[in-house]
Amino acid sequence: MSQVLERVSPGGSLEARPIRVLNQIGLDLTDAVGLLPRAVFRSASREEAPWQVGDATILVTGPSAAWRQAPATPPEGWPFNLEWVQIASSGVDGFPAWLFDVPEVTTGRGVTAEAIADYVLAAILDDVKNLPSRQAHGPEDYASADALKPLGTLDGKVLGLAGFGAIGGAVARRAEAFGVELRVCRKSRQAELPGIASVDSLPDLLAASDIVVLALPLDDETRHCVDRRALSRAKPALHLINVARGGLIDQEALIEALSSGIVRLATLDVTEPEPLPAGHAFYSHPSIRLTPHIAWSGGQGRARLAALITGNIRNFLVGEPLVNRIESPSKIADPLRV
Amino acid sequence: MSQVLERVSPGGSLEARPIRVLNQIGLDLTDAVGLLPRAVFRSASREEAPWQVGDATILVTGPSAAWRQAPATPPEGWPFNLEWVQIASSGVDGFPAWLFDVPEVTTGRGVTAEAIADYVLAAILDDVKNLPSRQAHGPEDYASADALKPLGTLDGKVLGLAGFGAIGGAVARRAEAFGVELRVCRKSRQAELPGIASVDSLPDLLAASDIVVLALPLDDETRHCVDRRALSRAKPALHLINVARGGLIDQEALIEALSSGIVRLATLDVTEPEPLPAGHAFYSHPSIRLTPHIAWSGGQGRARLAALITGNIRNFLVGEPLVNRIESPSKIADPLRV
Repeated sequence: MSQVLERVSPGGSLEARPIRVLNQIGLDLTDAVGLLPRAVFRSASREEAPWQVGDATILVTGPSAAWRQAPATPPEGWPFNLEWVQIASSGVDGFPAWLFDVPEVTTGRGVTAEAIADYVLAAILDDVKNLPSRQAHGPEDYASADALKPLGTLDGKVLGLAGFGAIGGAVARRAEAFGVELRVCRKSRQAELPGIASVDSLPDLLAASDIVVLALPLDDETRHCVDRRALSRAKPALHLINVARGGLIDQEALIEALSSGIVRLATLDVTEPEPLPAGHAFYSHPSIRLTPHIAWSGGQGRARLAALITGNIRNFLVGEPLVNRIESPSKIADPLRV
Repeated sequence: MSQVLERVSPGGSLEARPIRVLNQIGLDLTDAVGLLPRAVFRSASREEAPWQVGDATILVTGPSAAWRQAPATPPEGWPFNLEWVQIASSGVDGFPAWLFDVPEVTTGRGVTAEAIADYVLAAILDDVKNLPSRQAHGPEDYASADALKPLGTLDGKVLGLAGFGAIGGAVARRAEAFGVELRVCRKSRQAELPGIASVDSLPDLLAASDIVVLALPLDDETRHCVDRRALSRAKPALHLINVARGGLIDQEALIEALSSGIVRLATLDVTEPEPLPAGHAFYSHPSIRLTPHIAWSGGQGRARLAALITGNIRNFLVGEPLVNRIESPSKIADPLRV
């Protein structure tokens, strides 16, 4: 076993230097320590100058207020001894660009995709079936007009996916089991998705779909991609769901579209900023269902993240390729893949 | 075309006699009439002596209070000229046994299975995710203990299916897309279901599953199959869902199991009788979600039923085998298939 505990250099020889891991994500990674005596773990907060990484070789960090408010230029000497930054999130927005000026960057892509897809289907079925409103409290509820009104249905509905990364794929798999028809809009169309029709643009997706799920990263190209013009194309009675980043939506335009009935319903787990200030219309609009960025939670997301990261640390030590590598936040091969 | 409009007798010769269809289900079947000039349709209520079928060749009927309160013996001369009874429901309970004393009986099996499976998943996700309770109404909802509590998950949950007919299959397909582990209890085990573990008995199913869906017909063998003894075996925190027939459950035993915490939650779309009398505990029990037998509704169930029946009428006229045939309510090949 000992050979897996030391980093193999590209030439194949064993290196003896210690690998220092700075763990800023508050997730116990020490299950891996027993296997990795040469990896030295140190825990720290990511809320106070998380860029002060000391002599760490590996930085494990995640989104935080401190990162969002980081200085525009890196601290003198950056990246110090860092060889690799592992971030916990899928999205690489919310970090200063210079954070990624290190030899290797990896993300938590895919770890929470299943939980997020469950949230999406829960939001869709809440809307379509609305079972709590159909509870029977007495015999009269078997004969009332409301009781005789059929439940809503997914049968024949079109679900539009903006982005087809881990989240988009997990939503698609579920939706297909319900017989929902799928449309996808994504940047890379090299590989056709079997059985899924593509549309060319987000406005086209909004026009073609009864439900649209935003599952794409926020970058300069996608910021406010759901704007007034795109929303004006929405199919009547659209249900818009955002589980990606608040900045994808022009929030003022969305309020207008909901208030005028151009869009029927918005389920939003993300906003810009987060949280929105007290009194913001999103907190009370009757056509908005707002949750406090919790779609990712639950399930075995944290266990999966820990497994991903400890697996990556092993990969690093033995010189294997890291999982979920990105070149840099501005050079992701397919920015519509989350 | 004219040859499809007349019934071909077993010997192959065309019969000239008119086929009289008595339609008691209030569903427009006359779309088929254009193609079927020799089928004469007559509409009637099924709430007043629906067994008075006159000279009808085909009776299209469905569950009703009149059928449930039918005399134990058939009217003198039954089945008169009837050659075939098509019922609209999947279940054959709620009809007098003598109704089926005709050459052919067919059911509406499978027509509403997709809508019912949607209801089941909506009930499961309502419970697991409970999104309405997680709405954010202000910035404080991003920092509260409730906001930080992870959502529930289907990840790692076991779903037990009692019965694996059209409804069971439709539920299984959806549940698998969520990564749920399946267990099935059914009478016929001739054909193994690929990738789905079978258990031997309903108590074993209750013991093995986090969620149990009852999707089996009511007959002498299954009546009160969920009784005190079976419930005593339930896995902690069980969610029991009944979308089949109320008579499958010993209702008093269920109330006890819910009140004592042996079972956590019951979602019931069916009861015995239906509706229950005013003041029945099911209407107000905090651990019961009762809906007024609406799981089947919505979607294209009625259109599918009409297509099934008109297709069957065509089959009858041309001498092809009918779809959804049963031998008799007491002789169904596999009574656990709904």
